[in-house]
Amino acid sequence: MINLDDLTLAQRLADAAGAAILPYFRAEFGLEMKADASPVTLADRAAEQAIRDILARECPHDGVIGEEFGETPGTSGRTWVLDPIDGTRSFVAGRPIFGTLIALLEEDRPVLGVIDQPVTRERWVGAKGHPTRFNGQPCQVRPARSLGEAIVASTSPAAFAPAELARFQRLAPVTRDTVWGGDCYNYALVALGQIDMVVEAGLKLHDFAALVPVIEGAGGVMLDWNGRPLSATSAGDVIAASDNALAEAALAVLNA
Amino acid sequence: MINLDDLTLAQRLADAAGAAILPYFRAEFGLEMKADASPVTLADRAAEQAIRDILARECPHDGVIGEEFGETPGTSGRTWVLDPIDGTRSFVAGRPIFGTLIALLEEDRPVLGVIDQPVTRERWVGAKGHPTRFNGQPCQVRPARSLGEAIVASTSPAAFAPAELARFQRLAPVTRDTVWGGDCYNYALVALGQIDMVVEAGLKLHDFAALVPVIEGAGGVMLDWNGRPLSATSAGDVIAASDNALAEAALAVLNA
Repeated sequence: MINLDDLTLAQRLADAAGAAILPYFRAEFGLEMKADASPVTLADRAAEQAIRDILARECPHDGVIGEEFGETPGTSGRTWVLDPIDGTRSFVAGRPIFGTLIALLEEDRPVLGVIDQPVTRERWVGAKGHPTRFNGQPCQVRPARSLGEAIVASTSPAAFAPAELARFQRLAPVTRDTVWGGDCYNYALVALGQIDMVVEAGLKLHDFAALVPVIEGAGGVMLDWNGRPLSATSAGDVIAASDNALAEAALAVLNA
Repeated sequence: MINLDDLTLAQRLADAAGAAILPYFRAEFGLEMKADASPVTLADRAAEQAIRDILARECPHDGVIGEEFGETPGTSGRTWVLDPIDGTRSFVAGRPIFGTLIALLEEDRPVLGVIDQPVTRERWVGAKGHPTRFNGQPCQVRPARSLGEAIVASTSPAAFAPAELARFQRLAPVTRDTVWGGDCYNYALVALGQIDMVVEAGLKLHDFAALVPVIEGAGGVMLDWNGRPLSATSAGDVIAASDNALAEAALAVLNA
C-alpha cells in the first residue's frame, strides 16, 4: 500500500515536469531538430531536471533512473523511474498525446505510476492498494471483450523487430481493429475503459514502469509476452489488457 | 475570395457539430459498438443533422454531401461537404485527435474548409483569399525542408491498398521519420507548421475537401499522387506538403 505522501509527491513531480515541458510544445524555435538543441530534447531535460531537483531535496536516499540523465543509485530500496516525454514523435509533431511517466519501484517492482498529459491536463495515477484515478476520479477498464471484439493499440509497426512484427501481424487480424500511434496514452486509454488492449515490444524500463500500476489499479493486467509480471529486468515486450482472459487469448496467438 | 458571411457560417456549423459530438466522446453507453447504435455513429449522425438543419434554413439553395446522410443536390453551384467525425478510430479509442470537417465547394473545387477538434477546442479555418487561421490567429506551414529532413504522417498502413503501400514504403525510408495515426489532425499540423507532409490514399471527398483550403491558405500545397490539384472527382490519393518542391520530391519517389 503506497502512502498518501508518496502519491502527493508523485503528483507534484508531474506538476513540475508539465510546467517545464509546456513552453516547448509547438515552440517555433529550434526547428533544426539538432540532437542537442531540439525543443523536445530541451523539454525532456528541463522536465527531468525539475523532477530530480525535488527528489534530491525531499527523498535523498531514493534512487533515480531517468531517460535523460541516467541512473543515480539510492540506499532506500526505492527507485524513481522517469520518462519526461514518452511519445517524442507525437511531441515533435505537435500532437497532445505524449506523456510524462513517473514510476516508483520498490526493489524491482513498480508500485506507483503517473501518466501525465500536460497540454490536455489529463492525469492518471495508479498505486498499489489504491484505485487508479483519472484527474482525481477513480477509473477502470471496461468490461472484458473477446479477442475478436477487442480494439488493440500500438505505437508504430517500426517499433517491432521483424520477428516481433510477424507475431503482431498474426494477432491484429483476429482482433476487431488496430489503432496506431499513441505511446503511453494508449495504456491510459485502457485504464479509462476506452480501448481493450495494447501490444508493444522494445520498451525500456522508463517506458513501461509507470504504466503497470495505472493498468493494474484500473482492474487490468500488464504482462510480458511470456505472460510474466513486469519488473525492472523485463525485456520490454508488453501486453496490457482489460482482463486476464483477453491477455491470455492474445498471448496464445502471439506465441502460436 | 470567400466572403465573411460564409466564414462566419462555417464556424457556426462547426460549433453546432461540436456541441452534438461532445456528449458522446468517451461515453460509457453503447459499448456494443453495433453498427447502428455505437457512440461514434450516434455522434456522427447528430453532428451532421445539426449542420444540415442550419444549412437547410440559411442556404436552402446550396447542395450538401455528407458522410452520414448522402447527397442533397442544390441549385446555387455551391456544395457543402461534411465529415462530422473524421478519425472515427481515434474517436472510438477516446483520443482527442479526431476532427469535424466542413468544406464548401464552388462547382467542384474546395474554396473553404474547417477542421475542428471540439475536445481540445482547436479550430483551423482556411478559405480562398484569406490566410488560414488557427483559433482565430493566422498560421502557416514551417520553412521548407528537404525530403530527408521531412517528418511525414499517415493514418494507418492498412489504409493503403497493397500497391499503394509498396509505393509509400519506398518513400518513408528517405524521409526523416514517419508518424502514424492522426487522420485530419495531421493536415492541421502541417498548416500549423508542426510537421512537413502527409501522404495518404483511399480518401473520399468528405475526407479531403476541407483540408485543401486549410493547407493552401497556410502556404502549403495539396495534390493527388499525380501532382494534380484536388477536386470533387479526385481518386483519393493525396499529398499535403509545406511547399511545392517537397511535394514534388516525394511524388518523384512515389512514382519512381
